[in-house]
Amino acid sequence: MPGPADERRVDPIARLIQAFSRLPGIGEKSATRLAFFVLRQGSEYARNLAEALLEATERVGFCERCMNLTDGSLCTLCLDARRDGRTICVVETVQDLRAIQKSNEYRGQFHVLHGTLAPLEGIGPDELKMKELLTRLQAPDAEVEELIIATNPSVEGEATALYLKKMLAPMGYRVTRIASGLPIGGDFEYADPATISQALAGRREM
Amino acid sequence: MPGPADERRVDPIARLIQAFSRLPGIGEKSATRLAFFVLRQGSEYARNLAEALLEATERVGFCERCMNLTDGSLCTLCLDARRDGRTICVVETVQDLRAIQKSNEYRGQFHVLHGTLAPLEGIGPDELKMKELLTRLQAPDAEVEELIIATNPSVEGEATALYLKKMLAPMGYRVTRIASGLPIGGDFEYADPATISQALAGRREM
Repeated sequence: MPGPADERRVDPIARLIQAFSRLPGIGEKSATRLAFFVLRQGSEYARNLAEALLEATERVGFCERCMNLTDGSLCTLCLDARRDGRTICVVETVQDLRAIQKSNEYRGQFHVLHGTLAPLEGIGPDELKMKELLTRLQAPDAEVEELIIATNPSVEGEATALYLKKMLAPMGYRVTRIASGLPIGGDFEYADPATISQALAGRREM
Repeated sequence: MPGPADERRVDPIARLIQAFSRLPGIGEKSATRLAFFVLRQGSEYARNLAEALLEATERVGFCERCMNLTDGSLCTLCLDARRDGRTICVVETVQDLRAIQKSNEYRGQFHVLHGTLAPLEGIGPDELKMKELLTRLQAPDAEVEELIIATNPSVEGEATALYLKKMLAPMGYRVTRIASGLPIGGDFEYADPATISQALAGRREM
């Protein structure tokens, strides 16, 4: 009985499994499980996920000012006039921005570098959104006083922080670095030596 | 500066995260990671996954004969004339079928029940593809001699196997059940009592 399967096209199930398995942390077994879940759920579920994928990648781009992701020309944070324009918190990624936003502690603006300096991988200042930061600082309506360098406390994050400090301090800005130390709920017994060293060096009067 | 973000539509990133988090085993954190991965990969990757989703759910249906999933009227296994039509291996799910196929040990045909009997959840014989199995056995060109009941060795799988045995044996078919016992590479020390009991009961001359 001749059917479409005779034409030896790519098996749609295999294609879906293959597409899922390209996601990070999803191996072939998980991808197979996801694919069969989708097939069981039916076409409405698949259409929603497909539309969400297309909408996100087609409509989302960089905020003109802070390089956050947005579906407009400016992101909601930059559009929010209540946020303090005198402080810019410089972060590595949009995920880091969102984590800081979730803590509800910060009311200033952001700037997303989209990476850290990594000379061995060919990532220099030009590969990051540093030019955009300078342009922004030099804008006629800029009122920035302080830049909080909130790159991660890793080797690359520290190197990037140092680079920014050297670039921004001579321009007259206050440049601060987020505190490193034991996380809340942490334990000296399980903390690494570098963290303990930072916790001691950064001690404060109480 | 008025932009599309002013219209207060659903944030496309939030929508994508939400769609991902409906997948099994994907929580909000994983969904966020997947969404940002997709955004970094760009639209070609997203389009491929979106198309794979739509294609799979729109084109894939049940094989007319064995209830496997296929994009034709018959699946590739049923179209393969080299497979032995005298044996049908009855499995719970398409994933089980694929696992058996991967072992490259079985050359007969399959039948997928799409579940097991679960009276408490309202799943009786009519909710499974049992009628389709009977129809198939009664087809004029049927040459079936043996049915291998390969439902999983769980309470529901055993109950379903017993039901099938009672239905099929009086019709004159040889009805066999897959062997249960210690898996290859297994260890008595870590095996559960039920598996050990099955391994002893199913012992063979050597």
